[in-house]
Amino acid sequence: MARLSRRMADLKPSAVREMLAVAQRPDIISFAGGLPAADTFADLDLSPPPRDLLQYGPTEGEPELRVVLSRHVGGFGLTCPPERIMVLSGSQQGIDLAAKLTVDAGTTVAVESPLYLAALQVFRFFGADLAVLDRRDPASGWAEQPPALAYVTPTFQNPTGECWTTDERRGMAEACARHGVILFEDDPYRDLVYDPCDRRPACGFAPEGASWIYQGSFSKTFAPGLRLGFLAASEDLFPLLVRLKQAADLHANRLSQWRVLQYLADPGRQARLDRVAAYYRTARDRFAEGLERHLGNLASWTSPPGGLFFWITLPEGVDEDELLTKTRERGVIFTPGRHFRVAAEGRPAIRLNFSLAEPEAADRGLAILGDCLRELCKTA
Amino acid sequence: MARLSRRMADLKPSAVREMLAVAQRPDIISFAGGLPAADTFADLDLSPPPRDLLQYGPTEGEPELRVVLSRHVGGFGLTCPPERIMVLSGSQQGIDLAAKLTVDAGTTVAVESPLYLAALQVFRFFGADLAVLDRRDPASGWAEQPPALAYVTPTFQNPTGECWTTDERRGMAEACARHGVILFEDDPYRDLVYDPCDRRPACGFAPEGASWIYQGSFSKTFAPGLRLGFLAASEDLFPLLVRLKQAADLHANRLSQWRVLQYLADPGRQARLDRVAAYYRTARDRFAEGLERHLGNLASWTSPPGGLFFWITLPEGVDEDELLTKTRERGVIFTPGRHFRVAAEGRPAIRLNFSLAEPEAADRGLAILGDCLRELCKTA
Repeated sequence: MARLSRRMADLKPSAVREMLAVAQRPDIISFAGGLPAADTFADLDLSPPPRDLLQYGPTEGEPELRVVLSRHVGGFGLTCPPERIMVLSGSQQGIDLAAKLTVDAGTTVAVESPLYLAALQVFRFFGADLAVLDRRDPASGWAEQPPALAYVTPTFQNPTGECWTTDERRGMAEACARHGVILFEDDPYRDLVYDPCDRRPACGFAPEGASWIYQGSFSKTFAPGLRLGFLAASEDLFPLLVRLKQAADLHANRLSQWRVLQYLADPGRQARLDRVAAYYRTARDRFAEGLERHLGNLASWTSPPGGLFFWITLPEGVDEDELLTKTRERGVIFTPGRHFRVAAEGRPAIRLNFSLAEPEAADRGLAILGDCLRELCKTA
Repeated sequence: MARLSRRMADLKPSAVREMLAVAQRPDIISFAGGLPAADTFADLDLSPPPRDLLQYGPTEGEPELRVVLSRHVGGFGLTCPPERIMVLSGSQQGIDLAAKLTVDAGTTVAVESPLYLAALQVFRFFGADLAVLDRRDPASGWAEQPPALAYVTPTFQNPTGECWTTDERRGMAEACARHGVILFEDDPYRDLVYDPCDRRPACGFAPEGASWIYQGSFSKTFAPGLRLGFLAASEDLFPLLVRLKQAADLHANRLSQWRVLQYLADPGRQARLDRVAAYYRTARDRFAEGLERHLGNLASWTSPPGGLFFWITLPEGVDEDELLTKTRERGVIFTPGRHFRVAAEGRPAIRLNFSLAEPEAADRGLAILGDCLRELCKTA
């Protein structure tokens, strides 16, 4: 019997993983994952990259790309020089690095609940003690026991799709600075914007001398298969994150970095992003109509101003997993809300992805979901 | 002041990293790094990959590639079905995953000394207690305190270039199985072979039911910039490693996976590998002549049967760092042996990379190294 680390005990077989395996079957309507629509991917110029990119490269990423990324984040309100930008092998990696940087067994990490499930898993795996954050009063309890890290997704969070107000963003940054808490902002959905909303990074409000990490992704509007993201960080943390990145995988794929550089330089990029947003906005609105039609008097939700998900609150007493068992029998899957939560708090809920199923399939799926939910409510 | 994890205290600023920054200067002759010669990289067909690779992919890697990799390792003596092959974002990632899998603060990990410095860093970072392994008597002390993991590079190890005998490989696998130690075999250099030597993986000798992880790389003979490696593992460990990979970066770059698949399918691959080996063999032999000429009566070494390095043992009393300071002033750098060692054991030594410097520059660099060493020996 192999001797494993204690932290492996916190790495449970993923029910979500197992469910997503089912999503591949052609007879299944899946609201479960979070795949962007392939139609929205960049018209990638897949022409040959320069051969010198075949050699090992710098841990921080390609210098030209870091310059462009510095300008990129500057354009939406985050001032960070190229010297403090690092290219990641996807933004999931940033979560791993931030956890390594801050979390020992028992370290307090403040998170929203619900939150991105793979962030929840990573913090738990490193032994964090999770404290639920109220963005309207972030520093509550911090005077006595400040967390080491506050992980937030102010813009179109997965799973809720919510967008924080300007005051909430500023308040978060100031609370973190005041209590010496590292602000870790995850921002993968910012370009999937359907309704007006302040998307300035909370890290953009961080006062001089505060500790922060901001990360972005190219998976949602460029192409997830490239596995490329980036982070920007405060002066105190950046060199430590570089060492952690080096130990993790030396550096990110250089051919992908080259492709992202081309993509960011494309003068048609904003027009393309507008088209992508319009595409998803239509999908969201159509999905909202289907929800109204099939679950209107059974559940509640807010139309998300951005992102890829509806967060649906169910009537008290409904068992999320029982609902999934029922719908799966009829070929429909989704992700139960408990996977996104720190503890079993609040009303039952489910996350529905609206970006993958075709309109007719989505409507059929929602009808089945409504049927199953009605049945469950009768017996509850 | 940000609150960081205790393990960050073990992540020292890397003297090696700082030195390698100097290596970029055109006036420097660098024996310090381990860059493969760019001339040896595959004549990569950089034609456009299929567009469906732009979407998210499976954590384990592309199914076709896993089938080919299973056949690939089978071809050199390691039986492993495709279901237990996982594609990595470079084999450095495998070290991170294996450490996460096994190492708590105080966990014993058995390693050779000297060993690959970035593996040493990762195990230390996770808090391992390192025990030095004697490959001729691997289980010494294991009855009382067996390590959780034994990390070995039997084929052309970095930095020594040594190649284990068949008996040593078998003995290692059997000792691990007998004591419930996970055998972790790192095999990035196997294709850089210059002299006949048994290169069968030690994991190929693992008895039924033993726990093992074998990993290979495409960085040395294909192209490091792609950041692609793979692992094969025993049945008990494989599913755990998949979960760790998912938490680390979801999956490896799909475009790179596609390119490696093309590369492995190329019927001219073996002929190309032979040419690469011939290229490096010539470089090694020329380097050995230079060593003989300039350091012949000052230091000792064995010509490496494979890999990219000479491990040079220096006279007692020579300070490795002092030597580096002297040579650097004259434009020559190398990596001091202490960076590869668990503790300050044995005679001083240095690692010289022979694959990067041009022949004339290499000879000039070795002459300077000889001069500086002679000076130091006089004053020592």
